[in-house]
Amino acid sequence: MKHISFIIIAVFLFTACIQKEQKDTDPLPSWNESPSKNAIIDFVKATTGSGSESFIPEKDRIAVFDNDGTLWSEQPIYFQVAFAMDRVKEMSDDHPEWQTEQPFKALLEGDVKTALAGGEEALLEIIMSSHSGMTTKEFEQTVKDWINSARHPKTGKLYKEMVYQPMLEVLNYLRENGFKTFIVSGGGIDFMRPWTEEVYGIPPDQLVGSSGKVKFEFIDGQPVLLKLPEINFIDDKEGKPVGIHQFIGKKPIAAFGNSDGDLAMLQWTAGGEGKQLMVYIHHTDTEREWAYDRESHIGKLDKGLDEAHEKGWTVVDMKNDWKVIYP
Amino acid sequence: MKHISFIIIAVFLFTACIQKEQKDTDPLPSWNESPSKNAIIDFVKATTGSGSESFIPEKDRIAVFDNDGTLWSEQPIYFQVAFAMDRVKEMSDDHPEWQTEQPFKALLEGDVKTALAGGEEALLEIIMSSHSGMTTKEFEQTVKDWINSARHPKTGKLYKEMVYQPMLEVLNYLRENGFKTFIVSGGGIDFMRPWTEEVYGIPPDQLVGSSGKVKFEFIDGQPVLLKLPEINFIDDKEGKPVGIHQFIGKKPIAAFGNSDGDLAMLQWTAGGEGKQLMVYIHHTDTEREWAYDRESHIGKLDKGLDEAHEKGWTVVDMKNDWKVIYP
Repeated sequence: MKHISFIIIAVFLFTACIQKEQKDTDPLPSWNESPSKNAIIDFVKATTGSGSESFIPEKDRIAVFDNDGTLWSEQPIYFQVAFAMDRVKEMSDDHPEWQTEQPFKALLEGDVKTALAGGEEALLEIIMSSHSGMTTKEFEQTVKDWINSARHPKTGKLYKEMVYQPMLEVLNYLRENGFKTFIVSGGGIDFMRPWTEEVYGIPPDQLVGSSGKVKFEFIDGQPVLLKLPEINFIDDKEGKPVGIHQFIGKKPIAAFGNSDGDLAMLQWTAGGEGKQLMVYIHHTDTEREWAYDRESHIGKLDKGLDEAHEKGWTVVDMKNDWKVIYP
Repeated sequence: MKHISFIIIAVFLFTACIQKEQKDTDPLPSWNESPSKNAIIDFVKATTGSGSESFIPEKDRIAVFDNDGTLWSEQPIYFQVAFAMDRVKEMSDDHPEWQTEQPFKALLEGDVKTALAGGEEALLEIIMSSHSGMTTKEFEQTVKDWINSARHPKTGKLYKEMVYQPMLEVLNYLRENGFKTFIVSGGGIDFMRPWTEEVYGIPPDQLVGSSGKVKFEFIDGQPVLLKLPEINFIDDKEGKPVGIHQFIGKKPIAAFGNSDGDLAMLQWTAGGEGKQLMVYIHHTDTEREWAYDRESHIGKLDKGLDEAHEKGWTVVDMKNDWKVIYP
């Protein structure tokens, strides 16, 4: 009897030890062994290991992540644009003028190509019209309803299921090592906040993004914030270091992006003192996701790719470095 | 021998128990027993006690604090204005035109009254001129140097020593109970961030404030953010709920202010669901601090005081509710 107990205990301890070992040695299980995986792990060990000469105190461990194309997919159109187009359809009864005005007319006829032919201006008009004229609370509910029901035309998944499993592991790994993780996205803060806490474990106050103006008012004696059809801040390109400064107030030591829109953020991070980690996610996987870079209209990665190679930043090869794409 | 051990252990346990008891029953030792002290403690117990019907999960425990007049003094002029005036003097060699232009001429002659006679416009000009034309990093160093050396003309204390001990206890008490504490101030974010972590335990990313525009640029190959003489956001009055929305993204459940400039923030907080705490610090202490409210040019509290009485918000009587003012 005693022998059996001993054996059970020994086996249990051995198993626990092995599991701990595996956990210790593989904090990023969805990543294939690769230079990019090693770069992330080496950086975390160097900045958090006590006695390391690159040690950085916990309060300065700021990591920033672009969202579209870095934490979730962004093809064939930014998911927020898909949301905006769904909103335009829903709101069209209250806007008879949209039956004749572009880009709304084309959108309502299901002709996305014509609707978006007007470029950034048309896009902005679609976003502004669909993201204003209601209170922030009403808008929040609309986003929640959409994110929990709308599905991607190609994968059939909920949009919120099209987040990258390997990046969820990076977020967790950094947080377990005392990093504070922030999103710094060109996407709208009011569009992201209703679901980033659930999906990424990132609370609303750790989110930097583009925004429209809002106005404080009383309606029926209740204080509300009304969303206005007016741009407040565009958190893209040179706006990203600005947003980081205004919202976070500290220079990050790690930055993850996927496009030229993230280049200034990576440059800003690289310009700090001590050790930094700059990572570009390179979309190279036609089968499991999409492959695009220098010529793409969405998530164009051209200058950034050159600079990454030149400066030795980490470039993640999605196809070869990631065992899985989505959870 | 055994008896002595027992007695020592018993005394030790008894002492520990008493200390625990005291800690449990007095989390705000610098506060006299008063309705305002009770209101704060009752609120924390109601929202954090497991099984309480007003229980609020930790992720929603957001508490916001005005800074000037709520966490530190603001008389006879906002401390940031004292900083700006010191800066104007230091920068005057590079600005010969200030010898003849108001409000700078008066300032340089030590005539503060004339300098500030131009009201908000003059003030803004002094702030803008002294807070731009350098990188954010250079400005940060200037603020650090000033906050660690400049002294208040009346008390002789360092300005950063003129923070309210009873409020430091409130900040700690809330954080110990799972609250995330934020500053939401009309003061400038770049002026506050260099010292709020040390003084209040509030990190830079938990700070909402007014700001000037900044621009991302390369100087000698290094990325910098240049401070421009242009307003980006004024975090005062109706701007406070706006700032809370843009930066924090959640409605607070507790808000502390001291002036009409905080009224919209308290109204916004009061408009939430569940239990809330709205607190006004009322400056009533001519001897240990200052006494002012409805008629004051700085920190005017008029409409807010009426609304606080009408709605049963907590009004702290500094003179009678606080055992000490400064640490």
